[in-house]
Formats: sequence, C-alpha cells, structure tokens
Amino acid sequence: MIGAEGYGRGMADPNRIWTAALIVIGDEILSGRTQDRNVAQIATWLNVQGIRLREVRVVADDSGAIVEAVNTLRARNDYLFTTGGIGPTHDDITVDAIADALGVGVVVHDDARAMLAGYYDTRGGLTEARLRMARVPEGASLIENRMSGAPGIRHGNIFIMAGVPHITAGMLEALTGRLEGGLPLLSATLGCWVAESEIADLLGDVERAHDGCQIGSYPFFREGRVGANFVVRSTDAERLDACMAALGEGLARGGWPPVPGGI
Amino acid sequence: MIGAEGYGRGMADPNRIWTAALIVIGDEILSGRTQDRNVAQIATWLNVQGIRLREVRVVADDSGAIVEAVNTLRARNDYLFTTGGIGPTHDDITVDAIADALGVGVVVHDDARAMLAGYYDTRGGLTEARLRMARVPEGASLIENRMSGAPGIRHGNIFIMAGVPHITAGMLEALTGRLEGGLPLLSATLGCWVAESEIADLLGDVERAHDGCQIGSYPFFREGRVGANFVVRSTDAERLDACMAALGEGLARGGWPPVPGGI
Repeated sequence: MIGAEGYGRGMADPNRIWTAALIVIGDEILSGRTQDRNVAQIATWLNVQGIRLREVRVVADDSGAIVEAVNTLRARNDYLFTTGGIGPTHDDITVDAIADALGVGVVVHDDARAMLAGYYDTRGGLTEARLRMARVPEGASLIENRMSGAPGIRHGNIFIMAGVPHITAGMLEALTGRLEGGLPLLSATLGCWVAESEIADLLGDVERAHDGCQIGSYPFFREGRVGANFVVRSTDAERLDACMAALGEGLARGGWPPVPGGI
Repeated sequence: MIGAEGYGRGMADPNRIWTAALIVIGDEILSGRTQDRNVAQIATWLNVQGIRLREVRVVADDSGAIVEAVNTLRARNDYLFTTGGIGPTHDDITVDAIADALGVGVVVHDDARAMLAGYYDTRGGLTEARLRMARVPEGASLIENRMSGAPGIRHGNIFIMAGVPHITAGMLEALTGRLEGGLPLLSATLGCWVAESEIADLLGDVERAHDGCQIGSYPFFREGRVGANFVVRSTDAERLDACMAALGEGLARGGWPPVPGGI
C-alpha cells in the first residue's frame, strides 16, 4: 500500500540498497535510566523488509535537537523512523518538533481522535491530555497501534513510533510488508575458541576474496577462555555460503575447529 | 590529572553544564545482531562525574560516517567518547578514521606496544595483527585497560574506548574522577498505578512550579494494569526534594497513592 502512495521509484533495481535512519528521542535513554531496546528491534525488522538501518541518533526531549536530526536524516535515507515522545505528557514533544522540521502545522487527526475516544470510552473518557495523542503534523496518516489507544504517525518517509518497545513492536507488525525495500541482508555465523588477533589476517583475506560479503568479528571472554563469533553478511545466498565455507576451512586448517551457528 | 592537562577553564562556575557525546561504532549494532550496552553504561558513569550525555550517534564501520560524527560532536561538546572498532581485525577502523577527522597521522605508541608485548608474552607473542592495537592518532595518550591487553586512547577531548562492555567498564573506572565536570545530576523516582494521561496536567504544573527540575514520565503495562514511573532530575538536592514532595502530594490528593522509589 505504501508503495502505491509514492515510494515506488520506477523499474526496480534488484541491487539498489534501501536505507533507513532511526532517531531515538528521550532523556531517559541519555540519562542511562532506560536501556534502549528499539535500535535492535527496528534493525532486525528492517533487515527482513530489505532495508538497512544505516544510522541512529539518540537525542534529548529538545525541539532543536529533534529538528536538526530529522532534517539531516530524512534527506539522506529512504526512510526515517523515530521512537519516543508521542504520549500525553508535557515531555512528549515529538509531533510538534517534527512538524517544525517539516514546516507544517499540527492538527488533530479525525481518525486518531475516534480511535482514542473508543479506547478511552471505558477508561475514564477522552480528556484534553489524551486528545494530545491525536495531534499529528498536517498531512500525516496513521500507523495502527494494536497494543494501546494512540496510533503511530506517518508523514512522507517519516514513521513516528512509540517509545515503549512492545507498542513499537505492534506498530512494526502493522507495517510489515508495506514498505518498498531491496534484497534482505542475509547473515550466517561461525564461532571459534580463538583470539581474534590470531586470525585477523585470515578474516581480511577471506573477505577480500568474496565480493559482496562482509565479515564482522565479535570477540568474547567466557568460561575463562577467549573466543569470537564471525558473522558473514551478504544479500546473495550463494556468495554467503562460499564465504562461510572458506572461513570455516581456514579456521580448521589453522587448528581452530569452527562451531556452526556461533558460540 | 586531565584537568591539569588543559581541561581547566579558569574559575569554576558551579552551574556550568558539562556535556559529552558518544559515538557507538559498529555494523553489529546497526544490524540488530548485538544489543548495545555502552550508551546506558557510559551515561550512568558520566552522571556521577557531573557530565551530561547530550547526544549519541550509532554509525557503521565506515570511515566517512565516523569522520562526520567525530567532527560535528567534538566541536559542540566538552567531551566525545567513542566505543568499538579498536580491535585487531580488518573491520576495526576507528583509529584511522579519527586520525583522518583530526588531520593527523597514525603512529605506533611505544607504551601501548610495550603493554601489548607484555600481555601477549605468554599468549603467542606480538603478531602484526596484535600490533595494530598499539596504533594511535598522533599526539594521543593511553587509557588503562584493566581487563585485557589493548589500551584505550585519549586525544584532546576525545576518548576512544573498547566496544566490549566489560572492557569499556574497566576503562571508565580508570578515568573515574579524572575529568572535570559540574554538579552531578541527581534523580529520584515515584511510581504510581495510574495512566499517565490521567495526570498529565499535574506533571506539567508541578514541573513549571519547580525551577531547575525536570520530570520524566515512563508508562508501563504490568500485571494487567497500567502504571507509570515519574523521574525528577535536578542538580540541586533541595529543589529535587521539594518537587518530589509536591508530585507525591498531588498524586495522593487525586486518589493515586505514590510508591517511593518507583514500581
């Protein structure tokens, strides 16, 4: 549906890389009070849609900071997601800041008002504070919220989502399959009880020998021993398999038995 | 010690707010494979040093992205921290990218080489890959690594830290009390079994009535009920107490008993 609303870019180039940026909005993340979960959740979801999360910014509940991030990131990515700051309280300023960034006004969305009226009908009614959650940047449409009353908001290539992770999850579910993307990024993992510094050359050589594959190396220290997981990423399943095979052979040849799937 | 190296800014203004930015470097965060822990860890540590984490960016293992973030953030914050990308493998490009951003060369630091030689003496010796971890932007000093061989790096107001959270923790410990900061940001929490939309006006009124205090509202859904935690933040203990008292009274008056410390 969203493709039909203007995301189509003519004949599909199957190798085109679609990118997204994410702005996490909230003092509670920057104060260390709350551990963010939305970066990993949205990144994982985007991969399945064939879209790469290319950059993330965490900004305070501060209009200037939000406006700067929105205008930089929406211009250079296919999609921009935001999380946080769309509740009913005084520190929820995301809608106003994004409207400022876009140079549009803020209006009450009729469908959002109706949704909130229905949701709060048996929960004390639609107060003025609750009605704040029906406010959207002018020209926006809604993203279904399957978990609670207040919907997410879409304006052009900007997707304004809740901060509470399980509500965000429901909004992502509502968007699944509706954004145009490219080939999903595939990945496979090998683990090994080896110091990554022992096999740094092997990793570089194998990556260089396999176009279209990236190898990430993620060291750990467990059970009193050093080890690492190696993640190969590619949009091409055959290349991924070939790269994984070469890496596994190289490790085994060096005397470090690879563990498929990682440790 | 670091104050003596040039962070001092003359007579101290006790109300000056010291800020830091953080760049989290790594494809594994943007792919969703790894849940970042360093934002919360560094934010919490900075608060104790009297420094506010003002903004965070997560960027890929990509030199251009790192350079852009470094040069923007170091200019507008007192301190800049980075995590990730300082290991021995081909995807560890942080040192080279930061040197590029600063317009300086990359050199092998003698003390770092000595540390690594000592650490790897009984672990297979100092290979070329391991020696990569002694490379620093020219003019840098080292940050002690109490957990493993490779040190962190300081260059001016930039602190280049490990990505693995327990190694980062050791580097932060080595820096504790050594960065100039202002008044620590204090916080206190009240929880309440109330929908935040019910008391949005109360929150705004109490915040406005207490200069120098911010109130954050963090809703949740547990045990089949809605509730919220309210966090009051201030650098002034008396103002914080007064604001907390007013908030607690307001909640109790409305029929929602506050739970000190949060739910």
